[in-house]
Amino acid sequence: MTAGPALPTDAEILAELAEYVAIPSISRSASVDTMREAASWLAAQLRFAGGRVEETDGFPVVRGEWLGADGAPTVLVYGHYDVQPTGDLAEWTTPPFETVVDGDVVRGRGVTDDKGPVLLVLKLAQALVAQRGGLPLNVKFLFEGEEEIGSPHLPAYVRAHADELAADLVISADGAMWRPTEPSLSIASKGLVALDVVVTGARGDLHSGRYGGTVANPVTALAGVVASLHRPDGSVAVPGFYDGVEALTAGRRATIAAVEFDEEQYRATVGAPALFGEAGFSTLERLWERPTLEVNGITAGGKYTVIPHVATAHVSCRLVGRQDPERVVQAITAHVAALDVPGVEVRVRADEGRVPAYRIEPDHPAIQAATAALEEVYPGQEVLLAVIAGTLPATTLFEEALGAKTLFFSFATADEQHHAPNEFMRVARLREGMHAWQVLWDRLAAWIPASAGAAR
Amino acid sequence: MTAGPALPTDAEILAELAEYVAIPSISRSASVDTMREAASWLAAQLRFAGGRVEETDGFPVVRGEWLGADGAPTVLVYGHYDVQPTGDLAEWTTPPFETVVDGDVVRGRGVTDDKGPVLLVLKLAQALVAQRGGLPLNVKFLFEGEEEIGSPHLPAYVRAHADELAADLVISADGAMWRPTEPSLSIASKGLVALDVVVTGARGDLHSGRYGGTVANPVTALAGVVASLHRPDGSVAVPGFYDGVEALTAGRRATIAAVEFDEEQYRATVGAPALFGEAGFSTLERLWERPTLEVNGITAGGKYTVIPHVATAHVSCRLVGRQDPERVVQAITAHVAALDVPGVEVRVRADEGRVPAYRIEPDHPAIQAATAALEEVYPGQEVLLAVIAGTLPATTLFEEALGAKTLFFSFATADEQHHAPNEFMRVARLREGMHAWQVLWDRLAAWIPASAGAAR
Repeated sequence: MTAGPALPTDAEILAELAEYVAIPSISRSASVDTMREAASWLAAQLRFAGGRVEETDGFPVVRGEWLGADGAPTVLVYGHYDVQPTGDLAEWTTPPFETVVDGDVVRGRGVTDDKGPVLLVLKLAQALVAQRGGLPLNVKFLFEGEEEIGSPHLPAYVRAHADELAADLVISADGAMWRPTEPSLSIASKGLVALDVVVTGARGDLHSGRYGGTVANPVTALAGVVASLHRPDGSVAVPGFYDGVEALTAGRRATIAAVEFDEEQYRATVGAPALFGEAGFSTLERLWERPTLEVNGITAGGKYTVIPHVATAHVSCRLVGRQDPERVVQAITAHVAALDVPGVEVRVRADEGRVPAYRIEPDHPAIQAATAALEEVYPGQEVLLAVIAGTLPATTLFEEALGAKTLFFSFATADEQHHAPNEFMRVARLREGMHAWQVLWDRLAAWIPASAGAAR
Repeated sequence: MTAGPALPTDAEILAELAEYVAIPSISRSASVDTMREAASWLAAQLRFAGGRVEETDGFPVVRGEWLGADGAPTVLVYGHYDVQPTGDLAEWTTPPFETVVDGDVVRGRGVTDDKGPVLLVLKLAQALVAQRGGLPLNVKFLFEGEEEIGSPHLPAYVRAHADELAADLVISADGAMWRPTEPSLSIASKGLVALDVVVTGARGDLHSGRYGGTVANPVTALAGVVASLHRPDGSVAVPGFYDGVEALTAGRRATIAAVEFDEEQYRATVGAPALFGEAGFSTLERLWERPTLEVNGITAGGKYTVIPHVATAHVSCRLVGRQDPERVVQAITAHVAALDVPGVEVRVRADEGRVPAYRIEPDHPAIQAATAALEEVYPGQEVLLAVIAGTLPATTLFEEALGAKTLFFSFATADEQHHAPNEFMRVARLREGMHAWQVLWDRLAAWIPASAGAAR
C-alpha cells in the first residue's frame, strides 16, 4: 500500500461544497434549468474523467470514466446531485442553500445527502490523477438527479447504457454510516413504495356552519382510514403487508442484541418523549429488520371554517426481505377499499417508484476491502456491519442491469438531519472519506473478480 | 307606505362593489394598511352619516349615524368589511379579488359575505337621503373588520361605546337567506368555538427510513385522536359535548318536517357522493338544531419521506341551545387528555373567540316587520323562518352590551360559496335587498319599542 496523495484542505473543499449546495437542485420541485446547472457543476469536477451531462427521459445524469488501469477491476461510483425539499423554512436556523460551518459540522440542504459524500470522492480522484497520473483501478462515474423522487428514469437509462456502465462492483457514495461513534458498513437497505390516500367529499369546500353536520367530512374520514393502518401495538394492520418478511432468527437477534445501543441516548438524540414501535421487537430490530408504514403528511383544508372537499394522506413504506413492492401497494389498496367509509370516496394513488429491499453478503470481497479501509482510517475501532434503514433505489437496478453488487461507502452519518431542516455533515468526514476511498481503491485494485477484466 | 326612491342601477352598484372587493381585506392575514384601506373605502360610502374609521385594539371599525328622525326608533346596522382567506387559488375560476359578472351572479371573495349585502344598504340610504332629505327612522352604522376571525376586539369596543351605539334593534346585514327558492328570515344562529389539537413527537422531522418504526408518528397519532372525536354513527363522541342541547320537541320536528326540502337536490348541490350526519336526525334537523364538530383541516408534513415532528388538526364546533362554549372546549380538552397516545405529546390549544348560540323569537316586532318587507318584495311567496347554521358572533354581544336583539336581514344566500373558492352573489339580490330594507325601515319607523326614544 502506497502513502496517500496530498489532499485539498478542508477550507478548499468546503468552498467548493458551498458552490455546489448553492444550486437548489430539489428534484421534487426545481426547474430543469436548475437541475442542469447542478449537473454541469458536477460534470466540471469530473473533467479528469471526461465528465459530461447526458440526457435521460427525466433530469440528466452526469457521467465520466477513467479507464487507464490495465488488468485491474472496474468499479462504478454512484451518487446523486438532487436534494430533498427544504420543508418548513422557519425551522432552518441558517439558509438551506448557503453552507455554514458551525463548529465541527457544515450545514445546508444536501451537504450530507449526497453532495458532500460525492464531492470528496472526486477531490480524491483529482488528487490521485494529478499527483500519480492515474487511479489504482478503473473507475466509472454515474450521478443521477432523481434519487430523492425514487429514480423514475434511471432504470431505462442504465439498461440502455449497460455496456458502457459495466463494472465488477458498484460503490455508492450515497448512504450513511449508522452513527458517529464507530465506523460501520451497511449490508442491506430497505425498499420503498409511496402512495397517497385521497378522500373526496363534496364538489368544493363547504362553509362548516351552513353545511356542517349534513355531509361526511373528508378529514374525519381520512383520519379513520389512517388510524386503521396500524394496530395500537404499533404493528401494521394491513392484511398481507408482512408477506415476504422473514422471521428473525435467534442468531440474528443475538447479533443485534450484542450491538452497543443506548435506547435512552437514541431517544434523547431524536428528542421524542418516548420511543415507540412494533410490539415484540427491540428498537434496533425495528430499525434494521422490520418494514414500516409511515404517514409522511396530510394535506387537507386549513385553519378556516370549512369542510374541506378533499383530504390526502401521503404514505410511504420501507420494505425488507422479500416483500414485493407491488403486492404491498395492492395490500394497502385492498385494505382501504374494504373499509366502510360513508359519504365520501376513498382511493389510493400509488407513486411510480417501486424499490425492493437490497442485501450484500458480509463475506463479499467488497465488504472485506471496505472493512480494511475503515480499520486503517479509524484504527483500533471495530467496524460494525449495519443496515441502512433508508432506501437506495439504484442498488436493485445495478444488480439486475449490470450484474454487480453495490457497496455502500458513504461518509455521511445517519444522524445528520437527512431530509429534514438543518441538514449537516461532519467536516472531519470529508478528510476521513478521502483517505478511506483511497485505501478501498488500493485494496480493490488487487481483487480478481470472477469476471476478471470483462467489465472494461 | 310611500313609493320607493330611485335607486342606482345594477351596473352602478357593481362598479362600486368591484372597487370594494379589489381590496383584499382578509382579516386572517392582511396587513393593517390593507384593512384600513377597506375601512376607509366603506367610511367614504357613509359620508351622508358622518362616516369615519375608528380605532380598536385590532383592525378598525367603521362608524356613522343619521339621527334626524325625531320620535322614531333607532336601529344599529351591523356588518363587516373583512373576508375569508381565498383557500386554494387553483380552485378559483376567476381571480378572487376581481369581480366578474357571470350570468345572474357576480363572483369574487367577499361579494356575498359581506361586502355586497352591506353596500346595498348604504346605496339605499344614500338614495333616501338624496331624494327625501332623510331616513324614515334613526340609523347608526357599525362595520367591523374581524368578523371572520371571531371578532376578538369587538366586545371591548362595543362595551366602551355602548352609549353612542345604543339602539332599539340591531339589524345585521351579515347572514344569509337559507336558499334561493323562497324568502326567509333567520330566527337563530349557531355558536362557535375553535381549537387546534397539536401532536408533537421528536424535536424535528425525521427521515422516515433512518428512524422509521422506532418512534411514534405524530400524524398517525393525530389521526387516532381525530377519529376518536366522532362515533361511526356520526354523533360526537366527546363526553359532555351535548350538554345544554335541548331535545327536539315533537312540535319542532313537525315544523321542520313540513319545510319543503329535497335531500337529493341538496346532495346534488353540494356534490357529495351521499349525505351523512348524526344518526336519529333528518338533514334539516342536523343543519338547524344540532351542534357539530368539524375538522377544518390538518397541517402535517407533506409529500416527502419524513416522520413529521408535529401534526395539527384545526377543529371548530357550531353550538346550539344553551351549550356553553367554554365547557365545550373543556370537554374536548378532557376527552383528548384521557386518550392513551403513546410516544407523543398531545395538547389542545383553544382559539380566543367564544360565541354561544343566538335566538330571536318569531313574534318579535322586528321579525314581523321583516316578514312584511319580504312579502312585499317577493309577492305571493311565503316567508320561511329558518336557522342560520353559521355563526354571527356579534349578536350575543349586542344583546349583552346594548340590550338589543338582532334581526338578520342579509340578501346573501347560503349557497353562494361563503368561505370557499368561487364565492358569488346573485345580482338581483342587490335590488331586492334595497327594496326590502326600504320597506323594513318604513315599517319599523312606526314601531313603538318598550324603551321608546331612549336609545337616541
